[in-house]
Amino acid sequence: MDRRDVNPLVAATEAPPIAEAWRWVEGRSFPADKPLIDLCQAVPGYPPADALTAHLAEQVRAPDTARYTAIDGIPPLTAALARRTGSLYGGEVTAGEVLITAGCNQAFAVAVMGLARAGDNVILPAPWYFNHKMTLDMLGIEARPLALREENGLIPDPAEAERLIDAGTRALVLISPNNPTGAIAPPDAIAALYELCERRGVKLLLDETYRDFPDWEGRAPHGLFQRPGWQRTLVQLYSFSKVYSLAGYRVGAVIADAGLLSQARKVMDCLAICAPHVGQKAALYGLENLDGWVAEKRGDILARVHAFQSAMEASGTGYRIASIGAYFAYVRHPFAGKRAHDVAEGLARDHNILCLPGSMFGPGQDDYLRFAFANVDAAVMPEIARRLVESER
Amino acid sequence: MDRRDVNPLVAATEAPPIAEAWRWVEGRSFPADKPLIDLCQAVPGYPPADALTAHLAEQVRAPDTARYTAIDGIPPLTAALARRTGSLYGGEVTAGEVLITAGCNQAFAVAVMGLARAGDNVILPAPWYFNHKMTLDMLGIEARPLALREENGLIPDPAEAERLIDAGTRALVLISPNNPTGAIAPPDAIAALYELCERRGVKLLLDETYRDFPDWEGRAPHGLFQRPGWQRTLVQLYSFSKVYSLAGYRVGAVIADAGLLSQARKVMDCLAICAPHVGQKAALYGLENLDGWVAEKRGDILARVHAFQSAMEASGTGYRIASIGAYFAYVRHPFAGKRAHDVAEGLARDHNILCLPGSMFGPGQDDYLRFAFANVDAAVMPEIARRLVESER
Repeated sequence: MDRRDVNPLVAATEAPPIAEAWRWVEGRSFPADKPLIDLCQAVPGYPPADALTAHLAEQVRAPDTARYTAIDGIPPLTAALARRTGSLYGGEVTAGEVLITAGCNQAFAVAVMGLARAGDNVILPAPWYFNHKMTLDMLGIEARPLALREENGLIPDPAEAERLIDAGTRALVLISPNNPTGAIAPPDAIAALYELCERRGVKLLLDETYRDFPDWEGRAPHGLFQRPGWQRTLVQLYSFSKVYSLAGYRVGAVIADAGLLSQARKVMDCLAICAPHVGQKAALYGLENLDGWVAEKRGDILARVHAFQSAMEASGTGYRIASIGAYFAYVRHPFAGKRAHDVAEGLARDHNILCLPGSMFGPGQDDYLRFAFANVDAAVMPEIARRLVESER
Repeated sequence: MDRRDVNPLVAATEAPPIAEAWRWVEGRSFPADKPLIDLCQAVPGYPPADALTAHLAEQVRAPDTARYTAIDGIPPLTAALARRTGSLYGGEVTAGEVLITAGCNQAFAVAVMGLARAGDNVILPAPWYFNHKMTLDMLGIEARPLALREENGLIPDPAEAERLIDAGTRALVLISPNNPTGAIAPPDAIAALYELCERRGVKLLLDETYRDFPDWEGRAPHGLFQRPGWQRTLVQLYSFSKVYSLAGYRVGAVIADAGLLSQARKVMDCLAICAPHVGQKAALYGLENLDGWVAEKRGDILARVHAFQSAMEASGTGYRIASIGAYFAYVRHPFAGKRAHDVAEGLARDHNILCLPGSMFGPGQDDYLRFAFANVDAAVMPEIARRLVESER
């Protein structure tokens, strides 16, 4: 292939990194006493609820499931997600402020294309979620890295963010709970970033893919939806993939100003026409019926988080948890000066632990590894810590 | 909403036009002796095969259906589509030359983003499929209109196409069988356009969404896949929506050079991660089991085409079929000088016939209307012709 034959922006975009990590273990077999522990994938290790799959088995026989939906999604789903968002955050969200997408990567792409064109810029905290960076790169939108610091709990500093804003800035991205760090931004920190964005006239692109896994204990994850005029500043991205174990069905959402959505709808029409109908029915079923099931899974994931913390503390390992929350821990490895890529590859090769190096998530991340829990039982955590200690010998 | 808050390229992109046509009949009720005849939608009016929905009812209970697939799609589907393409066109296509997408709009978006960036240009025959134009507009890729002429059977003229090619041209788009005209480009005409593209180093983006509806009588729709090195020039787009009545499941494909696909895969990852798993299983089931069912539906659609032609001839109407083929007729209305939009709106308002004006498909189309058949039974065609005659009084 002649390189002139491809869009140079896409050619210069990094390839999806998870495939590379998989190559470290490809074709290998693992002994029964030291099986592969996969801490690499951010997907639930459990199937959807039985009641949900039974519902879908009926729905695939309904003729309408084979037909397109409105670009926005099926009206009961946009209405149900608006209601849920309103009640969870204690604010006011209408169905016309919801656009259903085929997953949260698409929600990000649709929102960003609705906001920015080639030559504009978007502020992207580093470490970042690699698909955010890839999407900006291929669209010719400059991703301005905003370094996250351990001393700030890996939460973006508004003053540092402000120094990056100029006339070409269209948005600041925030993921909370975060991928890759797991960090949950406190409501005050989210409010400070929102106020910065509001004052400077840029959008806060708030990706809350993992919001169903912390135990909020009745408090709102943030108060932004309670603010009059949130539509001028806030663009929320959401995914049904994790909460109902629906990754393969491809359903997510953008919640934003109806005027912005009337533009984003054009993008959605061109990129997808609509999210898959059966996936939309699945998401609707989840919102209407699966709160109890979600609470149970949340308990399992939280137990994994605590088991990992306890096991790491008890083990005396030099690997340190820099941050931890729903789904992920961001771990500082003990080999200062060694590339995270080499540390991760060594853990895969010699210790049958598959995790992702921080360097896959942006510049300055060579001291870190990302561990994803959703796939691994709490009982396995002491074995992980044991192998990490072993790797230090 | 402040217009500064949106991507000006998206703001300048036309809104999806079908919604406007629907507004002409919204809220109206229709008498039993003059029901609405919907010739507006390019979707099959019939549900998927019972065997297919039974298969899907089983598959939604399989845990893997809820998981992501590879970005390219599930290996049995890429392999099956490669085999089918090879056998239908008498050529050689490998699974590595197939990328499964969530429908054919996404196939176009992924292919175009893989090939072109803002400032490049793509040659787009007019009338065009509106989502192609919208996608190019929002990406800042110039769509260069190539006027189609009735005297050429509404097939692009290679000499005229060549005059539009310059150093910034990345592709020439061809849809065959065509939307909106129905025109089926003969293999020789397709070959001539391919040879032009090959000579000038641009891609032929060949959208064959409707290829399963003509009766090819054992001949290949074109011979391009038989040519050594087709990968340098040909990018084929395909959809499973029409052939297996799967629009709501969102499955399509790009068939192209493996090197180009390695770039397009990055785009696919960012726009969708993967096509919906259950839709991919549906498409695979179709390829492996539904040839007979497809042949039956093809017969129904062909019968509609013939019934429409006969009814129009017998009626003495001044509306004339400019071209007709699978799924669509492009009809010249008898009111020279009157806007197609006004003719179509009048047909909806006064004669309860919903069709799309040519002007929704590009410049210079004010003499034409698009009629889509897939929704309307052959027995209804004389009534359509009768109402058209009535509209001329």
